[in-house]
Amino acid sequence: MPRYKLTVAYNGQAFCGWQRQAEDMTVQQALEEAFLKFTGTYPSIVAAGRTDSGVHATGQVVHVDLEKDWRTDVVRDAVNQHLAGHLVAIMTAEKVDDEFHARFSALRRNYVYKLLNRRSPPVFERGLVWHLKRKLNVEAMREAAQLLVGHLDFSTFRDAECQAESPMRTMERFDVSQENEMIYFHLSARSFLHRQVRSMVGSLEHVGSGKWKAADLKAALEAKDRAACGAVAPPDGLYLERVDYPETQTK
Amino acid sequence: MPRYKLTVAYNGQAFCGWQRQAEDMTVQQALEEAFLKFTGTYPSIVAAGRTDSGVHATGQVVHVDLEKDWRTDVVRDAVNQHLAGHLVAIMTAEKVDDEFHARFSALRRNYVYKLLNRRSPPVFERGLVWHLKRKLNVEAMREAAQLLVGHLDFSTFRDAECQAESPMRTMERFDVSQENEMIYFHLSARSFLHRQVRSMVGSLEHVGSGKWKAADLKAALEAKDRAACGAVAPPDGLYLERVDYPETQTK
Repeated sequence: MPRYKLTVAYNGQAFCGWQRQAEDMTVQQALEEAFLKFTGTYPSIVAAGRTDSGVHATGQVVHVDLEKDWRTDVVRDAVNQHLAGHLVAIMTAEKVDDEFHARFSALRRNYVYKLLNRRSPPVFERGLVWHLKRKLNVEAMREAAQLLVGHLDFSTFRDAECQAESPMRTMERFDVSQENEMIYFHLSARSFLHRQVRSMVGSLEHVGSGKWKAADLKAALEAKDRAACGAVAPPDGLYLERVDYPETQTK
Repeated sequence: MPRYKLTVAYNGQAFCGWQRQAEDMTVQQALEEAFLKFTGTYPSIVAAGRTDSGVHATGQVVHVDLEKDWRTDVVRDAVNQHLAGHLVAIMTAEKVDDEFHARFSALRRNYVYKLLNRRSPPVFERGLVWHLKRKLNVEAMREAAQLLVGHLDFSTFRDAECQAESPMRTMERFDVSQENEMIYFHLSARSFLHRQVRSMVGSLEHVGSGKWKAADLKAALEAKDRAACGAVAPPDGLYLERVDYPETQTK
């Protein structure tokens, strides 16, 4: 059974997150049903990251085993055809070794959080950015974000329902940049805790608005206590942008 | 009565075009109703261009006369508040001289048409681009577009219901460029005929796909006959991007 690696994009507004649920439409269900229509067999699809409701992806990675040795462009085009009613699409399809695993082989997850900082509301990006009218101090956020880079205990920034065994994570990158009225937060780590990005961005916004100093963010981190988290940013601005894998596992 | 110049953005998917109609929601109606809520008086709003159903704007310009001398930021923020349910927003508001007229003072209208040229369908830009799977020849379109630049008879590229007296227009710019999978058509003219941009882009696509040679486009132009038009591109990709005015009329 050949294994396929698929890069998938989806608009999170249309789904109740990645993972299959009893009632609401999820990205996993939409994809699995499209594969069922294509191959006649119900597939098992494994994703690099289980994004929450409302969270988007431009570069989610999944793997799936198919019974037949389909050409990769046929897989991409046929499944996209069956996905037509949904705001999810396969961007690329590749054949990979059997040891490739979308979740366990991942070396690094890369997220971007988009914040539109201007008085006027968005008309093209509604639900696709976090819109804040009050002018934020980007330089203060950029500096404070560095306090959250490194091998740290992120207990403050994990959801109460997070199921990870350890609150320790290694934040490799937390960059803050600005382009016109859009502020971008770029984050990279091998793995993230549940709601970690949104908890960190929500707390960093407190620094940008002047409610917090950098020292307050540091104190929140060191409290190792969920109650010390500033706020949780809405899912609207969050995108799973790219997942990195060892080159040897992708032919 | 002070006159205000407003720059307005809207997502054309949410409206049946600019101009007020008896039944369906239009941009003009949404704006006029928001001003009514703000000032208590029904305003008359004049736009630089009456965009068709499904056509977008990032820089539509309108003027409106208000009874009271409001601060420009108050006008922008209050009207945006009343527009909250609609995919239209005021980007900027300025006070202008009484002789400023959004439609008649305009020196130049600038449109951009966005075409997504890749196999996979869009998930964030659905309704906001023209999606074509077959690879287009951008260089051939870039060269052929120059045949439509200048003071020409555009009878072939005007809608049958176009009410303009003359089919003559001066196309100042018709640039074709590419950025990754997106192809941009930038057009500038003092004024355009009805459906002219979409008729020209639709015909140019015939050149990009190889169905037409540049000579066929030239023959279509010279036929001065609507029946010779290649095709009309969908409204999805079209944006009124900017309207230029004499500097003396904007304080």
